[in-house]
Amino acid sequence: MKRIGVEDVALAVPPGAREHLLDTASAIMRDGDIVDISLSELSLRSGLNSALVKYYFGNKAGLLKALLDRDWQAIVRSVDALVAKGDMDPEAKLRRHISKVIDTFYAVPYLNRLTMRMVRESDDAEARRIADCYLSPIYRAYEDLIGEGVRAGVFRSVDPQLFYFTVTGAVDRFFSTRLVMKYCFDQDTLTEELRDRYREHTIDIIMAGILAR
Amino acid sequence: MKRIGVEDVALAVPPGAREHLLDTASAIMRDGDIVDISLSELSLRSGLNSALVKYYFGNKAGLLKALLDRDWQAIVRSVDALVAKGDMDPEAKLRRHISKVIDTFYAVPYLNRLTMRMVRESDDAEARRIADCYLSPIYRAYEDLIGEGVRAGVFRSVDPQLFYFTVTGAVDRFFSTRLVMKYCFDQDTLTEELRDRYREHTIDIIMAGILAR
Repeated sequence: MKRIGVEDVALAVPPGAREHLLDTASAIMRDGDIVDISLSELSLRSGLNSALVKYYFGNKAGLLKALLDRDWQAIVRSVDALVAKGDMDPEAKLRRHISKVIDTFYAVPYLNRLTMRMVRESDDAEARRIADCYLSPIYRAYEDLIGEGVRAGVFRSVDPQLFYFTVTGAVDRFFSTRLVMKYCFDQDTLTEELRDRYREHTIDIIMAGILAR
Repeated sequence: MKRIGVEDVALAVPPGAREHLLDTASAIMRDGDIVDISLSELSLRSGLNSALVKYYFGNKAGLLKALLDRDWQAIVRSVDALVAKGDMDPEAKLRRHISKVIDTFYAVPYLNRLTMRMVRESDDAEARRIADCYLSPIYRAYEDLIGEGVRAGVFRSVDPQLFYFTVTGAVDRFFSTRLVMKYCFDQDTLTEELRDRYREHTIDIIMAGILAR
């Protein structure tokens, strides 16, 4: 275990501490249905000294940026791999993709709101980096995925940009409205059963909406 | 013009001042893509003394509550009237409804986020009032609207609760992501042309998704 000094605080750095801080920050935002964290809660739940946040991320904004990067990089990698798959037809790819979007927002329901917050609070260069690294690649993947299906005559001709908003909006909204669930439907938790019901519903509606007949 | 005294400030109350404050608060949140207002900006843009906020609404939270009530009451009235229409078939009603949802979020793109904020920041009784007065009636309207179409054999059998999230999510997301537009698509404003393109796209996808074949 190495020892570091931050602002006159010498502390031990447990192995995996950076990852553990990100995991804990993610869990706090998911559990609280919020896009913010308090460093004292982070320290309490992670069991790690909050000086480690300064050491790894500079400050809370740096931690949030690192979390955004972590979550988005996983998504972009996964979507790119799906689009590149040669042995899968466009319909199967789109079904698989929608299913993955459900898994993603179930795991990180705060992601869209965190992204908007970071874009809003960043300077122009950082906002453009977020758009270029994460939002534009997903949009281009939609152009490829939808375009392939349209050319194959499997999909009706729809605008990939608008379709992107339809899919991600329908999914994001569901998983970021726990409070609606609580007060309207007496259901306070995002259960796996609810996730799977919404997965089936969403794939059903969206695929029927885009498939050529 | 009557004169009122609020905290030792005697000021004139122009006719329509309450409505004008709400209109201005709505415009500020729409223009800034935010769910908050500063009272000084409200005073500047409305041309009204900010003591009038205290007079009509008590404080900023009271103003936001009044805006939430104003926006939602219009929606609930409109949806109830649509469901009750005897001379329109379920498919036409649903098309009309989706079109109205587009108009609503174009006019008040902050509404879902404001609702979530107010539910989160309210005590349990007020949160339940918001759910009972605004969210539950819309959900019941979906049960009626979808149920009517399913019984008529026009719609496939879908869960009205999940369908509600699909429709409102797809629309809400589009109009509350101006920043994505700006950085990904170099399009910074919600134009009427863009609204109408998204209207056509959404009705196309969702109707194809639900109609029985």
